[in-house]
Amino acid sequence: MPEILVLNGPNLNLLGTREPATYGRATLEDVRALCEAAGERHGFGIDFRQSNHEGALIDALHEARARHAGVVLNAGAYTHTSVALRDAISAIGLPVVEVHLTNIHAREAFRHRSHIAPVALGMICGFGPQGYALAIDALGAHLAGAS
Amino acid sequence: MPEILVLNGPNLNLLGTREPATYGRATLEDVRALCEAAGERHGFGIDFRQSNHEGALIDALHEARARHAGVVLNAGAYTHTSVALRDAISAIGLPVVEVHLTNIHAREAFRHRSHIAPVALGMICGFGPQGYALAIDALGAHLAGAS
Amino acid sequence: MPEILVLNGPNLNLLGTREPATYGRATLEDVRALCEAAGERHGFGIDFRQSNHEGALIDALHEARARHAGVVLNAGAYTHTSVALRDAISAIGLPVVEVHLTNIHAREAFRHRSHIAPVALGMICGFGPQGYALAIDALGAHLAGAS
Amino acid sequence: MPEILVLNGPNLNLLGTREPATYGRATLEDVRALCEAAGERHGFGIDFRQSNHEGALIDALHEARARHAGVVLNAGAYTHTSVALRDAISAIGLPVVEVHLTNIHAREAFRHRSHIAPVALGMICGFGPQGYALAIDALGAHLAGAS
Amino acid sequence: MPEILVLNGPNLNLLGTREPATYGRATLEDVRALCEAAGERHGFGIDFRQSNHEGALIDALHEARARHAGVVLNAGAYTHTSVALRDAISAIGLPVVEVHLTNIHAREAFRHRSHIAPVALGMICGFGPQGYALAIDALGAHLAGAS
Amino acid sequence: MPEILVLNGPNLNLLGTREPATYGRATLEDVRALCEAAGERHGFGIDFRQSNHEGALIDALHEARARHAGVVLNAGAYTHTSVALRDAISAIGLPVVEVHLTNIHAREAFRHRSHIAPVALGMICGFGPQGYALAIDALGAHLAGAS
Amino acid sequence: MPEILVLNGPNLNLLGTREPATYGRATLEDVRALCEAAGERHGFGIDFRQSNHEGALIDALHEARARHAGVVLNAGAYTHTSVALRDAISAIGLPVVEVHLTNIHAREAFRHRSHIAPVALGMICGFGPQGYALAIDALGAHLAGAS
Amino acid sequence: MPEILVLNGPNLNLLGTREPATYGRATLEDVRALCEAAGERHGFGIDFRQSNHEGALIDALHEARARHAGVVLNAGAYTHTSVALRDAISAIGLPVVEVHLTNIHAREAFRHRSHIAPVALGMICGFGPQGYALAIDALGAHLAGAS
Amino acid sequence: MPEILVLNGPNLNLLGTREPATYGRATLEDVRALCEAAGERHGFGIDFRQSNHEGALIDALHEARARHAGVVLNAGAYTHTSVALRDAISAIGLPVVEVHLTNIHAREAFRHRSHIAPVALGMICGFGPQGYALAIDALGAHLAGAS
Amino acid sequence: MPEILVLNGPNLNLLGTREPATYGRATLEDVRALCEAAGERHGFGIDFRQSNHEGALIDALHEARARHAGVVLNAGAYTHTSVALRDAISAIGLPVVEVHLTNIHAREAFRHRSHIAPVALGMICGFGPQGYALAIDALGAHLAGAS
Amino acid sequence: MPEILVLNGPNLNLLGTREPATYGRATLEDVRALCEAAGERHGFGIDFRQSNHEGALIDALHEARARHAGVVLNAGAYTHTSVALRDAISAIGLPVVEVHLTNIHAREAFRHRSHIAPVALGMICGFGPQGYALAIDALGAHLAGAS
Amino acid sequence: MPEILVLNGPNLNLLGTREPATYGRATLEDVRALCEAAGERHGFGIDFRQSNHEGALIDALHEARARHAGVVLNAGAYTHTSVALRDAISAIGLPVVEVHLTNIHAREAFRHRSHIAPVALGMICGFGPQGYALAIDALGAHLAGAS
Repeated sequence: MPEILVLNGPNLNLLGTREPATYGRATLEDVRALCEAAGERHGFGIDFRQSNHEGALIDALHEARARHAGVVLNAGAYTHTSVALRDAISAIGLPVVEVHLTNIHAREAFRHRSHIAPVALGMICGFGPQGYALAIDALGAHLAGAS
Repeated sequence: MPEILVLNGPNLNLLGTREPATYGRATLEDVRALCEAAGERHGFGIDFRQSNHEGALIDALHEARARHAGVVLNAGAYTHTSVALRDAISAIGLPVVEVHLTNIHAREAFRHRSHIAPVALGMICGFGPQGYALAIDALGAHLAGAS
Repeated sequence: MPEILVLNGPNLNLLGTREPATYGRATLEDVRALCEAAGERHGFGIDFRQSNHEGALIDALHEARARHAGVVLNAGAYTHTSVALRDAISAIGLPVVEVHLTNIHAREAFRHRSHIAPVALGMICGFGPQGYALAIDALGAHLAGAS
Repeated sequence: MPEILVLNGPNLNLLGTREPATYGRATLEDVRALCEAAGERHGFGIDFRQSNHEGALIDALHEARARHAGVVLNAGAYTHTSVALRDAISAIGLPVVEVHLTNIHAREAFRHRSHIAPVALGMICGFGPQGYALAIDALGAHLAGAS
Repeated sequence: MPEILVLNGPNLNLLGTREPATYGRATLEDVRALCEAAGERHGFGIDFRQSNHEGALIDALHEARARHAGVVLNAGAYTHTSVALRDAISAIGLPVVEVHLTNIHAREAFRHRSHIAPVALGMICGFGPQGYALAIDALGAHLAGAS
Repeated sequence: MPEILVLNGPNLNLLGTREPATYGRATLEDVRALCEAAGERHGFGIDFRQSNHEGALIDALHEARARHAGVVLNAGAYTHTSVALRDAISAIGLPVVEVHLTNIHAREAFRHRSHIAPVALGMICGFGPQGYALAIDALGAHLAGAS
Repeated sequence: MPEILVLNGPNLNLLGTREPATYGRATLEDVRALCEAAGERHGFGIDFRQSNHEGALIDALHEARARHAGVVLNAGAYTHTSVALRDAISAIGLPVVEVHLTNIHAREAFRHRSHIAPVALGMICGFGPQGYALAIDALGAHLAGAS
Repeated sequence: MPEILVLNGPNLNLLGTREPATYGRATLEDVRALCEAAGERHGFGIDFRQSNHEGALIDALHEARARHAGVVLNAGAYTHTSVALRDAISAIGLPVVEVHLTNIHAREAFRHRSHIAPVALGMICGFGPQGYALAIDALGAHLAGAS
Repeated sequence: MPEILVLNGPNLNLLGTREPATYGRATLEDVRALCEAAGERHGFGIDFRQSNHEGALIDALHEARARHAGVVLNAGAYTHTSVALRDAISAIGLPVVEVHLTNIHAREAFRHRSHIAPVALGMICGFGPQGYALAIDALGAHLAGAS
Repeated sequence: MPEILVLNGPNLNLLGTREPATYGRATLEDVRALCEAAGERHGFGIDFRQSNHEGALIDALHEARARHAGVVLNAGAYTHTSVALRDAISAIGLPVVEVHLTNIHAREAFRHRSHIAPVALGMICGFGPQGYALAIDALGAHLAGAS
Repeated sequence: MPEILVLNGPNLNLLGTREPATYGRATLEDVRALCEAAGERHGFGIDFRQSNHEGALIDALHEARARHAGVVLNAGAYTHTSVALRDAISAIGLPVVEVHLTNIHAREAFRHRSHIAPVALGMICGFGPQGYALAIDALGAHLAGAS
Repeated sequence: MPEILVLNGPNLNLLGTREPATYGRATLEDVRALCEAAGERHGFGIDFRQSNHEGALIDALHEARARHAGVVLNAGAYTHTSVALRDAISAIGLPVVEVHLTNIHAREAFRHRSHIAPVALGMICGFGPQGYALAIDALGAHLAGAS
C-alpha cells in the first residue's frame, strides 16, 4: 500500500492548546485521525510526524524519497524562513502539497512569503484541520493522474 | 437546495485553448461539470459564471448576497490588481474560497500578491480544475460546521 | 440651473447594509438626499450616479464635460488602482472634489495612495455622508470664485 | 459657549506674503475672520493661534483638553515629520480635523505622508482658506451628532 | 484580405480635444485614417475600435484570435495597471505591437511600467499618431517574415 | 552626591491620564518617586525633568555635561524623528540609558526605529514605570564598573 | 519555589572566550551565577540552559509552559531569523523578557530587527551580563504585579 | 543632403555572430544597408558608426550637433547605465530616436530602465534590424513636421 | 551696510569641545570671527546666531526677510529632518547657502539626505570652519552678480 | 599533522542523486576523496562532515577551534538564512573559506546574499567539486603565509 | 610652483552652448581663466583638462599622483555612475575637491547620489563657475593647514 | 599552446602602491609572474593586460574570441557598474573566471553586486594575488573537463 508522509513543523505539537482563537481546538492527534480517514479513501497509508527541528524535517523529507508516494507538509513558521526545506523538496522530486491551518495571507506581512510554495505542487490554506484532508485528496488525484 | 456561486474572471473563457502548457487542456465547460459533480455530493446547486469585466464580477458578488450560500472565486488576473473585488467580498459577508488553476507562487513575482486572499476564507492553488472540486468540499465542510 | 455630477464607484450601492461599523448606516439614497439639499443651497442641480464598472465611471466623466459645472467623486476602491480615472479627470478639465466616507489614511496602507488626488481640486475624507455636503460647498465656493 | 481651537503650524504666519502662487493672497488674519464667521454659524467661540515651535503646538493641544470642544489643525510642515503631534492628538482625545491650504497629494512626494491623518477625525485639503470653514462645519456636524 | 485590429483604450475617444499640449490636435478619426492608409500599403484591412472598459478590450482581443492577423494596441492608462490585458495577449497568441502617442518614459514614474510590454512583439512610443503607422509597418514586416 | 538626569520628552506630562490602556495609570509624579527611591539605593540624586520642546531637551542634555553622572532618557515620540537628540548624546559623552514605557517593537512600524539607540549605552522597554528603576540600576552598575 | 527559565541561544556557550571586545570576558557560568543571585532576591529558582539548536530552544520553551513562571531569553542570532521562536513564545503564554548582551541597535543593520520583540513582555539590551539580572528584576516586578 | 547619424554602442560590432537566438543573424553591415535604403526614401544621407567606448559615443553625439539633422541611437548596454549619454543628448538639442533590437521590457529587470528614454524623441524596440528603418521613418516624419 | 545672517542649528554651541575628532577644535566664537573677517572683505555686516530650537531657527529666518541680504545656514541635524526649515527658506525668498563642517556624504546614510539643499542656492561641505568663509564669498559673488 | 575541517550543510548528503543538471553527478564521497587528495598535497588531514541541522553545524565549528587549522564550509541553503553560522565563524577566529558548487550569483535572487561571506576569508563558487580542492589550496597558501 | 589639476568630465566641453538656462553662458575657457586667477592668488599653477572618457579621467588622476598638489574635480554625469573614479581618488591619496556648476540636490533624484563625495575632501555645488574658484580657495586653505 | 587572457580593469595598474592595507603590496607585475607560473603548470600561455577604459576591456574580450581558450577577469570597479562588460562576456561564449583580490562581500554594500557574476563560470574572491592562480587552476580543470 503506497504511503503518504504527513510532516508537521514547529509548534504544531501544541495544537489545540496553543492560541485556540487562531488555531482552533483540534489536537495534532485529531489531525492524524482525519488524515488516516482521508488516506483510507484513497488506499494510502499515512506516516504522520512532527518535529520542532528544521534539520529533522529535512531528514524526514530525505527518507521519504525511498518510502513515500507523496508528502503533505505543514512547515509552520519554517515556511517563511527556510531555504533548506525548499531545497530538500526540490532534491527529493516527490509531489509535495503545502498546507496551513490558517489563511497566512490574512495575517502579518512576514507570513505572506512562503519559501516552499514555489517548489510545491500546490497550496491549501485557511481551512483548519480540514485542509489536511483536502491535501490528501489533491495528492490522490495527482498521483492517479500521473500513473 | 442551497446554491454555490462559482465565479470565473478574465480570460478563463479561453480555458483549454489558452496556453495549455500552463493552464491544461480542460475547458471551462469541463470545469463546470466537475463543479456540478462536486456540488451534488454536498447537496449544492451550482451557479457557474464567467466574465472578463471587473464590474460584472462585482455585480455578481452583490447578487450572491441574497441567493447563494457561498462563493468559489477564480478572479484570474484581477486577483492581483482589484481592490474593488476585495471590498465586494468584505461587503457581502459570504464565505469565499479563492481558487487558482496554477500555483501562483511558482510564477512571476507580480502574481504572488493576492488582493483577495486577506478577505477570503482560504485559498487553494496549483491543482488545476481539481482545485474547484476541493474548494466546493472546503465550502461544504465550512457550511456544515457553521450550521 | 448648473448641474453637479455626484459620481459613486464600486460597492457604494451597498451603503448602509455593507459593514456598517466601517461605513455607517446611511444608504446611498440618504446620501443623494443630502447632496440635493446641499445643491439647493448653492442653486445646483444634482446628477447622482453609481456604477461598479470602471469604464462606466470614465464614460460618465466624459459626458460631464458638456453637461456639468463640476464633479464630486467617490471612486471607492478604484481610487487606489485606476490610472484611467485619473486621466479622465485630467482630460475633461472640470473641477473634481474627491470624497471618501472614511478616513482612508487611518486604514490599511494600500488605501493611503490615491491615484485621483493629484489631479483633483482637493480631498475631503473621514466625515461620512456629511463629506458629500462639504464637497458641494467647496465646489460652490470654487465656482463662485472662478466666475 | 463651546470653543474651538484653530491651531496653525510653522510658516503660516507669513501667509499672504509667502509664495502667493502656491498659498494664495489671503493673510492669516483673513483666515481668522473666516473661522470666526464659520464659528458663529455653529455657536462656537474660536481660539485662533499660530506657532513655529513644535513644542508650543503640543502645549496648545494639551491645554485644549480642558478648554475646547474640538480642534482644527493645520500643522504645516510638521504634518510630514512630527510623531509627537500625532501622539498629542491621541493623548487629548478631542476630535481633530486636519486642514491644508493646498492639495498636499498634488505636490512633492514627501508631502504625501501625514503623521497626523491616522489619528484625525478626517482631512480637508486643497480648498485654500475655505478649507478652514469646511473644517469647522465638519466639526459642528460631528459634535452635534456626538451630543 | 487579412485584417489588423487597432485597439484603443480609455480616454482615447477624447483625442484632439484632451490636453492637446500633451496629446496633440489629431482626433481619433484622424488616427483611423492614418491607419487605413498604412494598412493599404501592406494589403491589410483595418478594424479600428475604442473602449473605456477593460473588459471590453479583453473581449475584443479574444475575438481577434479568429479574425485578425495581428493587433496594434494603445491600451492607454490600462497599460500601467492591467494584468488581465497582459494575460489576454498571452492567451490569443497573435503578434501585438504596443503603441503610445507620448514618450511614456519621459512622463510620471507610474507611466514607466507597462504590464503589456513583456508579452508584446515590441513597443513604439513618442511619435504621436505617426506611431500607429510605424506599428502597422512593423506588423507588416513581421507577418511577411513569418509567412 | 552624584546626580542623574532623568529626562522625559513630549506628552509624558500627561502620563496617567493619557490612553491608560497603553501607558498605564501611574503619573509622571509617581515615576519621579520611583526614580528617587531607585536613586537612593545607589546614592544618586535625581534631577527629574519633562519638556514637549525638542530644543529644550537638547539644552538639558548640554547642561548635564557639567552637572550629572549619567542620563535616563525617555524621549517619547522624538525617539523616532530626532537626529538632533542623537547628536546631543554623542556630543556630551555621558552614559545615556534609553527607556520606553511600552514595548516599542510591539507597536506601529514607525515606532520600531530609534535614532537614539545607536548612541545610547543600552535600551530598556516594555516594563512601564518599572523600566526607569531598572535604568537607574543599569546606570549604577555601569558607573560602578567604570570607576 | 517558582522557577524561571533562563534560555541562551547559539554561540553563547563560547561567552568570555568569543570576541571579548564585543561580548566581554564574563563566561556563561558567570552569567548563571549572576542569575542565581538575582533569582534568590526574588525567591525564584533558576533553570539555566543553552543550546545552539533552534529546535532545542523551541522544545525548552514548550516544556516551560508546565514548569516555569517566566522566561529570560537571549536567543542570540536566532533573534534576527527565527519566526518559529516567536511562535513558540506566543504559544506558551508565559511572560518572556528578551535580553541581549550588546546594544543590538548600535551594530549591523541586520541585527536591528528582532522577530521576538513583538511578542516579548519587554527588551533589555546593551548592559552585558548585568542585563540578565535586570531581566529577572523586571520579571519579578511583573509577576508580583500580576498576582 | 541632410545626414542622419546612426550610432551603435557596445557589442553591436558582433551582431550576427553574437547570441543569434537573442539578437538574430543579421550583421551590422546588414543593418547599415537597411538604414541606407530607408535614408534614401527620405532623402537622407546616413553616417553609420559603432563604438564600444562610452566616451567615443559622447564625442560622436557632440560632433553631430554641427553636421547631422537627427540621430538614431542604439546605445546597447550603456542605455541602462550611462547618465553621461543622457546629458550629451540633452546638450546637443537634436531629435534622437532610441532603438533596440530586442524588446528590452521582456528581458531581465535591469534592462527595463533606460537613462536615454526620458530625453529621446521616442523609442522603438523589439523589431530587430527593422526597428532602425522605422526609426529613420519616424525621424523623417518628425523633421518634415518640424520644418 | 548690508547684513548677512549666519544661522547655526542644534549642538553647534558645543563646537570645539564636541567630538573634536569629527568636528575639529575651533569653537563657535572662532567661526564667528572667521565670518566677520570674510564679511568685512565683502562689505557685509554679520548677524551670527545659534539655537537648538527648530522653531527659533524658523523665527530667525522669518526676521531675516526684512533685515538681511542673504543667509549662511548650518542647520546641523535639522538638515536631515526638518521640512519646516525648508519651507521657511522657500517662504522668505532670500539666497541661502547651506554649510556643513563635515562632508555629510562621507558619514552615516541618514546624513546624506538634506531637506534644505533643494531650496538652497548651493551647498558647501567638508572644509570645517573654512566653509563658512567660502559661503560668504559665494554669497558675495551671488549678490554682486544679482545687483 | 594539521587538520582541516570540511563542513557540508543541508541536502549535500544527496549530492550526485539530487538535481544532477544543477549539482552534477559526483557524490559527497567523491568530494571527500577529492579533498583528501588536495589535503595530502599540503600535508593536511581532512575531517569531512555533513549535517542537515544548523545547530550541528554550529557545534562542529565550535569544536574546530581546538582541533583544526582552518575550515572549508559549504553551508548550502543556510548560507542565505543563518546569522548564527556567521556568528559562529566570527567566534572561533579560524580562517574559513566559503565554497559553493554552483555559481550562486547566476541563480535565484535569494541565493545572491550570503550571511557567511562577510566573515569568511574568501569565497569560491561555480566550479563544482573542484571548488573544494581550490579552497584547500587557498587555505594552504593562507596558512603558509600566516606562519 | 605647486600645481593643481582641474579635471572636467563628460559634456563640459560644450559649456556655454549647452542648455544655458541650466548651465549658464560661461564657456570652459572662461572657467579656465577663472581658475588661473584663483590659482595665482594661492601661488598654484593650474593644469586644466577635460575629457568625455571615463578611462581618460582615471588616467589623469593617476598621473596627478606624481605631479600635482591637489585636484578640483567636476566629474559631470560620471559623478553618479562611476565607482572606478571613486577608487582612483582613494588610490592616489591626494586631496580632491568635488565641484558642480548646478545644485545637484535641486535636480532629478538620480543626480542626488555622488559616488565621489564619500572619498572627496568636500563638495561645493550650485554656484556656477564661481564654485571652481571657491574649490581652489578650499584646497589652498587645506594645503596651507596640512603643511 | 592554448592561451589564457588575464584581463585587469581600472586602477589595478597602481597595485602594490594603492592602499596596501586593502590591496596588499604585490604589484601587477608580481601578479603577472604568478599567472605565468600557474599557466605553465597547465600548459597555457598567458596574455596579461590592464586598462582603465571600459571600452578597451570590451575590445580585448572581443579579440579573445578568436585567440584565447578562456579568460580570467578582474574588472575592478567596473564589476559593479558595467552591463556592457556583462554583455561582452555573453557575446564571446568563452569561459570567464571572475577574480577579486579582496572579499567584495566584506566591503561596502555597493561592492556586493557584480554585473559579471551571473554570466561568469564562477567567482573567486578574497585571496589576494593567489586568487589569480586559483582561477587559472579552475580554468585548467574546466577546459580539461570540456575537451
